[in-house]
Amino acid sequence: MDIIVPRSISGFPEWLPEERIVELKLIDIIRSNFERYGFSPIETPAIENKEILLAKGGNDKEIYGLRRLTGDEEEEDREIALHFDLTVPLARYVAQNYQKLSFPFRRYQIQKVWRGERPQSGRFREFYQCDIDVIGDGELSLLTDAEIPSIIYRIFKEMNIGSFIIRINNRKILQGYLQSLEIFDEKIPVVLRLIDKLEKIGVQRVSSELIEITGLSDFSAKQLIEFASLDYSNEQIIKILRDMKVNEMFDLGVRELATVTEHMVALGVPEEYFRISIGAVRGLDYYTGTTYETVHVDHPGIGSICSGGRFDNLASYFTEKKLPGVGISIGLTRLFSRLLRANILQTGPSTPASVLVTSLDSNRIISYMQIATKLRDAGLNTEVYFEPKKISVQLKYANQKGFAFVVIAGSSEFEKGTVQLKNLKTGEQREISENNISSTINKELDELKRAGF
Amino acid sequence: MDIIVPRSISGFPEWLPEERIVELKLIDIIRSNFERYGFSPIETPAIENKEILLAKGGNDKEIYGLRRLTGDEEEEDREIALHFDLTVPLARYVAQNYQKLSFPFRRYQIQKVWRGERPQSGRFREFYQCDIDVIGDGELSLLTDAEIPSIIYRIFKEMNIGSFIIRINNRKILQGYLQSLEIFDEKIPVVLRLIDKLEKIGVQRVSSELIEITGLSDFSAKQLIEFASLDYSNEQIIKILRDMKVNEMFDLGVRELATVTEHMVALGVPEEYFRISIGAVRGLDYYTGTTYETVHVDHPGIGSICSGGRFDNLASYFTEKKLPGVGISIGLTRLFSRLLRANILQTGPSTPASVLVTSLDSNRIISYMQIATKLRDAGLNTEVYFEPKKISVQLKYANQKGFAFVVIAGSSEFEKGTVQLKNLKTGEQREISENNISSTINKELDELKRAGF
Repeated sequence: MDIIVPRSISGFPEWLPEERIVELKLIDIIRSNFERYGFSPIETPAIENKEILLAKGGNDKEIYGLRRLTGDEEEEDREIALHFDLTVPLARYVAQNYQKLSFPFRRYQIQKVWRGERPQSGRFREFYQCDIDVIGDGELSLLTDAEIPSIIYRIFKEMNIGSFIIRINNRKILQGYLQSLEIFDEKIPVVLRLIDKLEKIGVQRVSSELIEITGLSDFSAKQLIEFASLDYSNEQIIKILRDMKVNEMFDLGVRELATVTEHMVALGVPEEYFRISIGAVRGLDYYTGTTYETVHVDHPGIGSICSGGRFDNLASYFTEKKLPGVGISIGLTRLFSRLLRANILQTGPSTPASVLVTSLDSNRIISYMQIATKLRDAGLNTEVYFEPKKISVQLKYANQKGFAFVVIAGSSEFEKGTVQLKNLKTGEQREISENNISSTINKELDELKRAGF
Repeated sequence: MDIIVPRSISGFPEWLPEERIVELKLIDIIRSNFERYGFSPIETPAIENKEILLAKGGNDKEIYGLRRLTGDEEEEDREIALHFDLTVPLARYVAQNYQKLSFPFRRYQIQKVWRGERPQSGRFREFYQCDIDVIGDGELSLLTDAEIPSIIYRIFKEMNIGSFIIRINNRKILQGYLQSLEIFDEKIPVVLRLIDKLEKIGVQRVSSELIEITGLSDFSAKQLIEFASLDYSNEQIIKILRDMKVNEMFDLGVRELATVTEHMVALGVPEEYFRISIGAVRGLDYYTGTTYETVHVDHPGIGSICSGGRFDNLASYFTEKKLPGVGISIGLTRLFSRLLRANILQTGPSTPASVLVTSLDSNRIISYMQIATKLRDAGLNTEVYFEPKKISVQLKYANQKGFAFVVIAGSSEFEKGTVQLKNLKTGEQREISENNISSTINKELDELKRAGF
């Protein structure tokens, strides 16, 4: 028979068990924090009608449509495609289930999405998005905007990924500023994209391109760049902004930003974890007020690990109801793969079990099973080694997979009603009563955890 | 602007938050039990190369291929498709990562799969499979086959879905029996499919078709049907089988079945939860020894809610290594939707939070936030109601979403350092010190749980 040699498809990540265990741990942290703040889980199908995905001008070159591999193609197949984000499906979901939902509707969604991008520079074609959004019915309190960063803070703190900064901004501020310079409408996104390039291409080039596009004077261009680069404490920036009094739009943005940052502190986000960043303008096309970006201090190259903001109307394509909202998305797959490569996250065991019950004596297999059953009943993840192999092979297997404990028992132990318990992290082995296995392991597991194993 | 009215696509299930919360609870139960037995998580991409999916003769009419929605189609896109199960991807994964895995390789996988079936009679096109398999390198102890049913038992017991029966069988027994009747090779699956129809079309029709296909005598056909319908206690059936001594294949199957059932009991599966069923032959084409089916006693119409068995060689299409294995798959989406419809599973709250902190006084919003932060720090899932609405609206919202508790505080409470704590399940309301909120709620939550709320 011909063997088909399996190969990975570029852009579709896949992990070894020891890596997936770490990824799952991150997902669990994200989920438990989303739930801690009262976000309800939903899941939408991976597949949506094409017209839904394209309603808002989705990039159709990046969307994977479906087709029957062979056989007659059904009409319906031509009309469906894989979702490329979780926001468009949310809009469809809220419009469709409007009567059945309670507002403000707080939902989280942790799912894979697909984009047919060229898989270059660490871009994935299949990846996890972890989203929360709060959707109001007609209106939504600005205080919601203050809650979002406290969730971001808790998640990355618990992930223990090192130093990060939440950049907070309000779109209305720059928009007001640009309006005061008579820059309007379609020119605004062009200018914002230029400002976003400040770090990359430098003040000189941004300035000359700004002047070319907008006709601004050298002086105004310089002032605009200085404004976008404001780098003071949050308190000082708020004070500077309050004193500027550019126009109504600007002042409204400043008031909103001040309210949001003030309440963020009350919700437990330490000052040193967020920074007002007027130049943080990514995604400003979509957002209408507060915006968030989060960067890893030691690895800014990862880009924003969590972005989002406030929008005026979630689902204008699918319903006439006005549904304002605020939310964020964590691009988990990229974050995880980068942190793993940078060794900020380390892999550990390739098994979720702490205990391996070895089998020394094939006539005693029922006793080994009973020991395992007791450990499982006590909440301990336990595997029994069933293969009739030498104990050295069994111990090698235990070490390779990273079990913390092995239980060993032969006829001499069974006579006494004891087992040998070997702690593979410390190397210690001792004989304990069969009745004390789970309590001893639980105690030693706590100690190992405290010692950072 | 034209509104696109969102509609569901047939065969792609989607749940309301209160339903998804129950589905997630089932997934959590499945996952924690898989981990309890030391199965390691893996996840394979939803998308595989076509040649991988078709290697084993996958039904290409049911496979969803991909295409770029518009724009130039890349060569590569033609070659990829959505996976239709988790077994083929597992085979590819094990072959590809053989050097990096420890054997026996125990893995679980809980993922969506896609099949382009006609969405009739409750068939889904997108659904969850929850799989475990143990893969040996060259060989795999038969005792592993005994462990699988104890996992099934624990899972459905914990799900609290009512009475279920694990039907256990060994393919070698019927195969040996058929060989003794000189029924070989390609006739075996035809006969097995007939036997599978016994309940549906009755003894008479099965018998006459049997005779037509195989040329068996009336007497032999009658005996075969009687044999496939054996209905005694497990112990009695094993005794009957042992006495029969049909041929070597048959006796090997009986010895294997006896070993497996004997050890199942040691692993904690009560006798009344499994039944040796010689006629349970579904999927016998693929399996080579032990097989499992699980049926809901009160809702047999759901079909098998968990099936699997032993196979000789997982990945013969992708590697020359011999990789025997045993595993099962739970078709979660169908199980969940049927149990929900049959009211065996009931939905509860549409929020994962237990506590709603209401906001009576907009000047005190920071205090409400601080109360919520304390509750969250104590591990309680908590939402703050930020909208400036009347308390009656806030309480209505709390009742709709199913919070167990609301915290209410106005100026008189703040002066005293107290809050009003209302238990929405019992209707009780009392004033307690601000310092005791989380401890009081935790205690009352325990009581509610014990009372079955």
